[in-house]
Amino acid sequence: MKSLPTKIQELNPKQAKLCLDIEKFGKLKSSENFAAKNMLVGVSGGIDSTALLIIATLLAHKSGGRVFCAHVDHGLRDESAGDRAFVEELCAELGVPVESLKADVAGYAEQNSIGLEEAGRIIRYNFFKQCLKKFEADYLLLAHHIGDLSEDVIMRLIRGTGWPALAGMDAYDPARKLLRPLLSTKKEKLEDFLRSIDCSWREDETNNSDDYTRNRVRNRIMPLLYQENPSLGAGLVRLKSQAELDESFWDEQVAEALEHAQKTIDGGILLPCSILNKYHSALRLRIYKKILDDIGPGHALFDSILLLDQSFLARKSGSTFQFPGNKVVKVNKAGLLFNIN
Amino acid sequence: MKSLPTKIQELNPKQAKLCLDIEKFGKLKSSENFAAKNMLVGVSGGIDSTALLIIATLLAHKSGGRVFCAHVDHGLRDESAGDRAFVEELCAELGVPVESLKADVAGYAEQNSIGLEEAGRIIRYNFFKQCLKKFEADYLLLAHHIGDLSEDVIMRLIRGTGWPALAGMDAYDPARKLLRPLLSTKKEKLEDFLRSIDCSWREDETNNSDDYTRNRVRNRIMPLLYQENPSLGAGLVRLKSQAELDESFWDEQVAEALEHAQKTIDGGILLPCSILNKYHSALRLRIYKKILDDIGPGHALFDSILLLDQSFLARKSGSTFQFPGNKVVKVNKAGLLFNIN
Repeated sequence: MKSLPTKIQELNPKQAKLCLDIEKFGKLKSSENFAAKNMLVGVSGGIDSTALLIIATLLAHKSGGRVFCAHVDHGLRDESAGDRAFVEELCAELGVPVESLKADVAGYAEQNSIGLEEAGRIIRYNFFKQCLKKFEADYLLLAHHIGDLSEDVIMRLIRGTGWPALAGMDAYDPARKLLRPLLSTKKEKLEDFLRSIDCSWREDETNNSDDYTRNRVRNRIMPLLYQENPSLGAGLVRLKSQAELDESFWDEQVAEALEHAQKTIDGGILLPCSILNKYHSALRLRIYKKILDDIGPGHALFDSILLLDQSFLARKSGSTFQFPGNKVVKVNKAGLLFNIN
Repeated sequence: MKSLPTKIQELNPKQAKLCLDIEKFGKLKSSENFAAKNMLVGVSGGIDSTALLIIATLLAHKSGGRVFCAHVDHGLRDESAGDRAFVEELCAELGVPVESLKADVAGYAEQNSIGLEEAGRIIRYNFFKQCLKKFEADYLLLAHHIGDLSEDVIMRLIRGTGWPALAGMDAYDPARKLLRPLLSTKKEKLEDFLRSIDCSWREDETNNSDDYTRNRVRNRIMPLLYQENPSLGAGLVRLKSQAELDESFWDEQVAEALEHAQKTIDGGILLPCSILNKYHSALRLRIYKKILDDIGPGHALFDSILLLDQSFLARKSGSTFQFPGNKVVKVNKAGLLFNIN
């Protein structure tokens, strides 16, 4: 391995443009120059996150930010110790402080009766949260690219997700400080980038196994979809932009409506008829969903929320609707009364 | 073939319920009892449309409506004359007036430099339109079911369709008097229905060919998606319900906004800043799209409309945007000026 570039100026024009496009996309989504801040990069050692780590150091050099790295050894493959060594070596060369975690994902999955994928995700995000704190980082950068976004849309379609969540993972999630600056970049460009700077990466063989839904979607379904339209990814990036606008629109509308919600003496929430009457069903359903999500855990289904709305429209005073998580909604003359039983 | 049932009471309870569920769904979507009206059914002779034709006659008997049939022989397969004979015989037995068209789909496709599928669709819908007039029919019933809806969502996803059109074909399209009463029914139920009344149907061998995108989606992609979630269809019916609500919401909002649009002396349309300023981008983009669609043919892309909005937000007075179909939008101090060049 020859020594890695430290400045964008050392790259060829194509690769320099790639870095600047990624910075531009990340700025657009986070509304500030994230590369001037403290960035924690989650790195597995695969193509995507290895490229992101190096690109982050190049952008940080240009914009005055700092880069930190977090690596999780899931302990599920023989090669995982080698992955850790690779990431730590890479960080040493780049001068990037790194935290590694050796996790017992299989044990955690068994203890909590959940799947390996979910267990891995929980452990990973908890560790990232600790590292964000330790490094006083402003952003957690993850290496999801167009291919991951496309897969995510198909996974969500399969699961029956509604709009706008259907359009896939967010490029920016302020609650988790999470930024995905590669979300409009093709994976091939990341591989090109690493080859152009003569940097190696680690292969994850389990990506080829068809044991996980995600891998079956990636390896069997996505190629058929891309065969019908090689520009599918660009279409899904566009769909995601539309979803972001719609989400921000509905968030505003729902927040405005909730200003008229009244707290009841027993800790419930009353939505008065006089307010609900003014709204379209498309908005009312989203208001119900928001209140149900806010009062406690448990996922309310679209069909149940639709039934609730039909009952409101028919003024079925006295009707009661049960939602997961012991949530109850009563239709009465004053309006809809939300509570936990 | 034993004689076909004429009343729902002659069916077994399961099949009777199927017919009533279909009537209920159609009523919900068309907001009236379509089965009490004059119904023209488009029938190819395949499982779906054969079942729909018979179910329509049963519902008409119950609700006092009348049934007519339209059949198009696309002239693309050796068996198509047999299909026509089958449909005409079936109609004779059911006492349903039928119009058949022998079309030269291949010739039309060549003359107009379009694909066979598109040519077939144009010829079919033109013929249906003539038949609607001839029979003074209130509804054109088509036999698309959950499987067709699911395929359509995937086809639209592949093509890069935005929300809410992404959620697939409409159950009811008043402009074309088109009602799809089977859109929440599984194909298997239609086959069961025909078997239960001992009615045969015609097989279309070209459905198995992988020459068409639709067939590749149907035969290769859909089975993989259904394998991940056998309830995928129900999820997509739910998604479609959400899309219908959102579409009606946006239609209302856009119509309200357009009341403030001003006609200019040269036939253009001015959207004043004072109005646009009040709206969220999610609404503004849909207003632009509606005006562009209304002033003439030509499909405006989401990305171009987004650029227009960014230019409006930046108050780039003097900027001009070109859209397909010689449409032009100018940003000036008063607002956005839409016109045809």
